[in-house]
Order: sequence, then structure tokens, then C-alpha cells
Amino acid sequence: MFYIIDILGTIAFSISGVLVALNKKMDPFGIFIIAFVTAVGGGTLRDILLNETPVFWMKDMTFIYVVAFTASITIIIKNKIDYLRTSLFLFDTIGIGLYTVVGVEKGINAGLHPVICIALGTMSACFGGVIRDILCNEIPIIFRKEIYATACILGGIAYFLLSELPINGDFVFVIAGCVVIFVRLLAVKFKISLPNIYGEK
Amino acid sequence: MFYIIDILGTIAFSISGVLVALNKKMDPFGIFIIAFVTAVGGGTLRDILLNETPVFWMKDMTFIYVVAFTASITIIIKNKIDYLRTSLFLFDTIGIGLYTVVGVEKGINAGLHPVICIALGTMSACFGGVIRDILCNEIPIIFRKEIYATACILGGIAYFLLSELPINGDFVFVIAGCVVIFVRLLAVKFKISLPNIYGEK
Amino acid sequence: MFYIIDILGTIAFSISGVLVALNKKMDPFGIFIIAFVTAVGGGTLRDILLNETPVFWMKDMTFIYVVAFTASITIIIKNKIDYLRTSLFLFDTIGIGLYTVVGVEKGINAGLHPVICIALGTMSACFGGVIRDILCNEIPIIFRKEIYATACILGGIAYFLLSELPINGDFVFVIAGCVVIFVRLLAVKFKISLPNIYGEK
Repeated sequence: MFYIIDILGTIAFSISGVLVALNKKMDPFGIFIIAFVTAVGGGTLRDILLNETPVFWMKDMTFIYVVAFTASITIIIKNKIDYLRTSLFLFDTIGIGLYTVVGVEKGINAGLHPVICIALGTMSACFGGVIRDILCNEIPIIFRKEIYATACILGGIAYFLLSELPINGDFVFVIAGCVVIFVRLLAVKFKISLPNIYGEK
Repeated sequence: MFYIIDILGTIAFSISGVLVALNKKMDPFGIFIIAFVTAVGGGTLRDILLNETPVFWMKDMTFIYVVAFTASITIIIKNKIDYLRTSLFLFDTIGIGLYTVVGVEKGINAGLHPVICIALGTMSACFGGVIRDILCNEIPIIFRKEIYATACILGGIAYFLLSELPINGDFVFVIAGCVVIFVRLLAVKFKISLPNIYGEK
Repeated sequence: MFYIIDILGTIAFSISGVLVALNKKMDPFGIFIIAFVTAVGGGTLRDILLNETPVFWMKDMTFIYVVAFTASITIIIKNKIDYLRTSLFLFDTIGIGLYTVVGVEKGINAGLHPVICIALGTMSACFGGVIRDILCNEIPIIFRKEIYATACILGGIAYFLLSELPINGDFVFVIAGCVVIFVRLLAVKFKISLPNIYGEK
């Protein structure tokens, strides 16, 4: 079941990459590359930092196929993609929820300090989008917009708080992932952002 | 003989880095850095992903000397560099041909799936130029121009098709590299590009 | 004692990251991320290239706490930060001096060639600032400004020259670090830059 969500996350990240690349008028190959780095960038950084190489997408072909398929479909139906924006947002949010918790668990398995595990999980979730924006020559959106990485950090904290309780590990995984998702959904719905530190406007 | 082409590839990539850096009015040190990352960036990413560290240019001093020498010469004769553009293009194309096949073979030696090997080869060939353009604050040229990475992918596919035939491995290497080179030469000569997916113009 | 300078270097790099991020009107989380990559980016690249993973800040929590504390303080007193610019410049210069020599020594311990060790030390010192500028969508400042990486290279050369003399290793460390610092201080004070290769102004 987690594998299915994993694929959904990859699909959502791929679509978000395609949408940014289309906006930059890239050719089909460039679009595929952007979709691919958006989908696997975070996990690749995570695996390199943990020295788990070859990295995950080099050992399991599923990810490269899913990105190729998703990117092709998205390019074909791009004129109708506006209808998809809501479900895209939902997939993307599910994606960062899952990637955060997977990253946290990988850090725990490597024997790292909880704070580092949360940092790893947040990177896994956000770094793909950062590379996407760098390649497209924009300031990464996570530095400019609403609650995004903050949701991942809160999910990571929830994971460690829940681990203290006598709860089954799978539930901890699911609940922590849901914390990420709900924080982000609430933040977007109620336009919550981090406190403005620049005084006016 | 392959080592000689390897050096030629490094020279060509260095020159292309110097040309971009000169265009940005960088100082001599900046120019050297850009030349260096253009020349070794792709191979460095490849070695990190495969966990072959220290990476190749840390073990063989030749590359750093070749880049330093090439960058110095190019800066000195920069006013005459226009005469060199054709041979530069040729060297660059030989370079991506070689780097593609070297990357593919490194992937095979690491026991990876053919699709991953082709991806590795394409990265080896193209990533240096991507970092060069990011450091110079431009959208990477491979996302905007004619057939480039596509030629690497076709060369990688050719490598695996030829491997099925009863041909000597060295010939497979040479022919696959030539496929990259010819595809790129033909694409530039006849202004072939990937299909336009944006409708008008 | 070196650990204290190490912390001072981390503080200085963090502050420089915060100042750039404030200038881009980032939110508090973005500011923290920029401060963090500025402070640890160079050492992370060094450790990945040397295959010393998990990288240093994943094994010693001090760095992440120092960055968080420094970034918080800097945001709070940002209106008074102009008074700090001189000491910031001094800390930053001490930082690159230290990071250069630490990088050189790590390279020596890994059995690498002196030229590679100097390259490693220079990367350790400069790469954090490069990532900071890329994330903020600017051409990295080391490619545009006065002597910066050049000071690191000269310090690295001094390290190897001094190692030939019958001097205690700790003194070599200190003197080589001071070379970096003095070269940079003198270059900024007397507005020395690399030779202009573009003819007119």
C-alpha cells in the first residue's frame, strides 16, 4: 500500500515538473528531465548523504517508467491540465507527506539523531522542487510561498513524539504523514504563512 | 587511443566553459572554475551516484592540468576564438560521444539495468554543461536547443543493440560513440529539433 | 581551540547567508535553509567527494544548533546588522581560512595529490557561498568580486611549502590559515583584484 502511495507521489511530483517546464517552453526532452529530477531529486540527495548508493531509482526501474509515462500523458493533455490542478495539489501534498516519513525512517535506520532525521525527511520531500526551480532559473518556490517545508518539519516532530507512545510503527508512519498533509492543506486553505518579518506589507 | 579522445573531450568542454564565462565577464579564476566544472561535472555526478569515490579527477591529475592549460590558452587567444568555433563544436560532439559510452560501460560494470546505464551515460555527457549554465545563471542550454541529450540517448540504445550482435566490444564502443556524434552533426546541419508541442510558431 | 574557530566560521557563514536571504525577502524558514547551506555546503561537498558519509553535520549536532541560533539572533537584530558588517567580514575571512586548511588536511589524510588537496580546501571554503547565491538566483559572488578563492589557493600552497620545513604540524595549520586571512584582508583593503583580461574597464 505504501508502494502505491509512493508511486502516486512520484506521479504528482512529475506532473508538477512538467507544468513548470511547459511554462518555460522547453522541448519534450527537457520536460522529461525536469519531471525526473523533480520526482527523484530529494530521494537522490538523501541516499547520497546516507551513502546508500546506487541510489533508489537506479535499483528499481519503476520510478523511471512512471516518470516517462506521466510526463507523456501530461504533455498530451496539457490543455486540459487546469482541471487537474486540484488533484495535483492533493497528490503533491500526499507526496511530501510520504517522502518526509520515509526520509525520517531512513535516518533512524542509519542511527542518526532525531533532528538530523527530520532534516533528512524534509530534504527528501522538498529538494526535488528546489532543483526543478534552479534548473528553470527561478528562486525555489519553497523560499517564497506558504507553509511547505514547515509542514514536513512538523510531521517529522510528530513522528518522534508518537514513537514515544505505545503505538504500532505502521500507525506512527501513517499519522505522521497525515500531519504533514493536514498542516499543508490547512495552511493553504486558510492562507496561513510564516510570520512576516519585514515590517510593512 | 581512448585516453587521447578523453583528453580531447576534456579540452573541448573546457573551451566551451571558458567561452561562456568570458561572455559573463568573469575574472580569470572564475573562468578556470567554470571550465573545470564543465569538463568534470558529468563524470563527478556519475562517480558519486555509483559510489566510485574519490572521483576520477581526484585520482588522475591529468584532468586538472589539461583544464588549467586549456583555459589559459583560450583566454590568451580569445580574440581569435571565432576561428575555432567549428573545431570546438566538433570536439564538443566527440566529447559527448565518448562520455556517453564511458558512462554506459560504467553502469554495466556496476550491474545496472540498460535503461539506467543509458541515463548514466547521458548524464555523464550533459551534466557538466548544465552546471556551467546554472553557475552562469542561465536556463541550461540542453533544455532550450537542438538535439543534444537525445543524441546521447540514441547512442546508448545503439550500444545495447550492438551488444546483442557478435561484434568485438571495442567496435561496439566506437560505433555507439559515432552514433552520438553523427546524430548531433546531422541534427545541427539540417536544423532538426524535437517536435514542437506548443502549437503556433 | 580549533573547534571554537570552527564554530566562529559557522556563525560567520550563517550570518552571511541570512543577510543575502533577507535581501531577497525570504520567509524565516527560507532564511534558515540559506544560512544552513551557506555554513555546511562546502564541507558537505568535501565529505561526499571523499566518501566520508554520513557527512560531518549529520554526526555532530552542534552545527545545526549553531546555525539555528545564529539565524534567529540575526533576524531579530537585523536592523542593527550594519554595525556588524566589519566583524562579519572578519569572521567570514577567519572561516574561509580555517575551512581551507581543514579541507587540505582531509585530502592529505585520504592520500590525495597536493593539487587536489588544495582544490578540496578551496571548495570547502567557497562552495557554501556558491550554493547560497545559486539558491538566491544570482551569479555566485566568487566569480564576480575581489580575491576570494585565490586567497584559499595561496593558503593551500603555503601549507605544502611549510610542510617541507621542520615545523610542528599545528603551526603549519595556523600559519597557512593566516595566509588565507591576510591575503584576503590585504586584497580588500587595497582593492587588489585579479588582472583584467577584457581590455577597457
